Amino acid sequence: MSIKTIQGGITSPKGFQAAGVEAGVKYENRKDMAIIYSEQPCVVAGTFTSNVVKAAPVKWDMRVVNESPFAQAVIVNTGIANAGTGKTGMEYCEKTAEKAAELLKLEKENVLIGSTGVIGAHLPMDRILAGVEKLVAAKSDSTDAGTDASKAIMTTDTVNKELAVTVDIAGVTVTLGAMSKGSGMIHPNMCTMLGYVTTDAVIAKDTLQKMLSEDVVDTYNMISVDGDTSTNDTLLVLANGMAKNPEIKEGTPEYDAFKEALHYINETQAKRLAGDGEGAKALVECEVINAVSKADARTLAKSVITSSLTKAAIFGHDANWGRILCALGYSGAKFDPEDMELYYEANGKKILIYKNGLDAGYSEEEATEILSQPEVRIIADMHMGNASATAWGCDLTYDYVKINADYRS
Amino acid sequence: MSIKTIQGGITSPKGFQAAGVEAGVKYENRKDMAIIYSEQPCVVAGTFTSNVVKAAPVKWDMRVVNESPFAQAVIVNTGIANAGTGKTGMEYCEKTAEKAAELLKLEKENVLIGSTGVIGAHLPMDRILAGVEKLVAAKSDSTDAGTDASKAIMTTDTVNKELAVTVDIAGVTVTLGAMSKGSGMIHPNMCTMLGYVTTDAVIAKDTLQKMLSEDVVDTYNMISVDGDTSTNDTLLVLANGMAKNPEIKEGTPEYDAFKEALHYINETQAKRLAGDGEGAKALVECEVINAVSKADARTLAKSVITSSLTKAAIFGHDANWGRILCALGYSGAKFDPEDMELYYEANGKKILIYKNGLDAGYSEEEATEILSQPEVRIIADMHMGNASATAWGCDLTYDYVKINADYRS
Repeated sequence: MSIKTIQGGITSPKGFQAAGVEAGVKYENRKDMAIIYSEQPCVVAGTFTSNVVKAAPVKWDMRVVNESPFAQAVIVNTGIANAGTGKTGMEYCEKTAEKAAELLKLEKENVLIGSTGVIGAHLPMDRILAGVEKLVAAKSDSTDAGTDASKAIMTTDTVNKELAVTVDIAGVTVTLGAMSKGSGMIHPNMCTMLGYVTTDAVIAKDTLQKMLSEDVVDTYNMISVDGDTSTNDTLLVLANGMAKNPEIKEGTPEYDAFKEALHYINETQAKRLAGDGEGAKALVECEVINAVSKADARTLAKSVITSSLTKAAIFGHDANWGRILCALGYSGAKFDPEDMELYYEANGKKILIYKNGLDAGYSEEEATEILSQPEVRIIADMHMGNASATAWGCDLTYDYVKINADYRS
Repeated sequence: MSIKTIQGGITSPKGFQAAGVEAGVKYENRKDMAIIYSEQPCVVAGTFTSNVVKAAPVKWDMRVVNESPFAQAVIVNTGIANAGTGKTGMEYCEKTAEKAAELLKLEKENVLIGSTGVIGAHLPMDRILAGVEKLVAAKSDSTDAGTDASKAIMTTDTVNKELAVTVDIAGVTVTLGAMSKGSGMIHPNMCTMLGYVTTDAVIAKDTLQKMLSEDVVDTYNMISVDGDTSTNDTLLVLANGMAKNPEIKEGTPEYDAFKEALHYINETQAKRLAGDGEGAKALVECEVINAVSKADARTLAKSVITSSLTKAAIFGHDANWGRILCALGYSGAKFDPEDMELYYEANGKKILIYKNGLDAGYSEEEATEILSQPEVRIIADMHMGNASATAWGCDLTYDYVKINADYRS
């Protein structure tokens, strides 16, 4: 394939700058505000939480994506989600966008806003506005600046998550960069907590939106940490066209190549979110193969990685396949439990654990060894059709409970 | 109301006997098999798991309930679920039923079977059959015998759950008794793990089935410990007619009175299961009021008590109402988050925590005190219609993870 991973992140595509600064939104001594800025106007595509309760920045961004012809900056804060803040929450977004627009010589309708953190708390606007000033002063197109931004948007994430790839579009090298965050409250129904993709590709807004909407179904929408769909889920793609490639149009090989690059970015970032789920010790992947339909395959795979009992068993390195079978069974998809197979796989080692309605007579030792790896794969062969899907989650640990029992303190 | 709670359980209604014995199915030195026996044939109503993967005893009981005109005995074991055991699993049920039928001078089609425990393991049939002999020899109509049976069906339950009530039916005292178990893998979609109700009422089978099917929707189907719907969920009601009341018919005050008694039994037992959820320190009740429809009210209430983040916050006595709002928001039901209210309540003390899209300015100390009680109530007033529903769950604790990380060891 023509995709090449490169060192970098959101500042890798031409014309993108970023910064991450300490603004003291909720905690001192940590970077907690980030900016993404493009030298040229960008077309923007976005997907947002399906939660009826939408945070103010989600409503703000939906408006920008739907009504503004372009955007040129994103301001993100962590610590406070600006959700459950009523009409005041929208005023916070507006003031933040106005401040950034004034400093960057834009209109407020060209500024996107992102927030993550505690629901119900109010933003300290003096600190937010001072933070915007710092961000604008600090922004740079260096790789380090992108890394700073990716660190500034973390909440309970243990590592920052950034990525960059290049892809050849009709002889022109186009670059995509990304940063994402999210660890708890992750069960995206449109996309993840916060994900940003920058690219210098030339592509029309509606083409980009269609591509993104199609892709999240098999990437961000297939991960779960705890089954709770956040009020703030936002995934944005900003394309500033500075690579000067021939415009990417649907139905061309260039479209397919760019989509493959976007898919690689989204899948990689989504898996990183799942693997870095709150308290997680392992990334759990469930691949359902030979299902009747793609929809069934997705439903089955997602049911397994969402099951608390399956997740706790993997934390215990316990080859309790009954829980996987049980989770497939209550997913809502029909199948014959007497005619299907289950496998565990890790590090290239794969064992059959369930077949013909019975334990397949595997070695518990081997299974425990596989389940002790940091990336564990469950394969369910449904023996029914030829549709497949993969979902990603993590194990359920003491630390998940600890983190969430006193998140606000 | 005409319902009176009395000391007792499944042996309280006329003509019912029970026993609980040590059979060594999986563990030594604990009661692990139980019998319910009626001196007279019983009509039986039942509801069962909606999981595609159904344990052998569930399939066996469905056949008895659907095809046999009556039943007269129930044999239950704990330790091994007899699920994921293929065709052999049905042979285990058949042999167990045959043995009981032979000793009790019945047909095997009149014997119901229940199993709970690990999925995938096979029943040690020599011990099971020896256990059936012990049960038949030990059975008695004493209150203690009912208690023994209710203890013998426990798995990770910390307390046994039995109950008995009387109700006046046209001047005749009719008695209902019950025992239930279930702690993990509780998210019944038809009914709970294992629940048994005995009664000496005269009632036709189809009347009893209709009443039961209607009632589980608002009782057992409204509880969740961990969102995992078991392969073994079974709720059976056995009515032997020995109270000699005029037959209970639909559309009469007697029907309503008996239904109220059954509802009381089911709701009480369901709440006990939720409050004794694996590792639970608190029973969490969510009452949704003024919703558009009953279906919406149920969906909203169940979403709250199923949310891992809400459950962890309650374990931490953290008044993090944002998680409740979030869980209502992703439930699938529509509402206006700017026009609704949230309350916490415990021990008769009730505080408003969220109103008009904002924190209601409650005292964190007061909220923490309420959330530290063993029974915590969340009330969501949707301001939309006049439908209401209640769901029951529990907090998410370290012990839940511990119990399920090494359940099989």
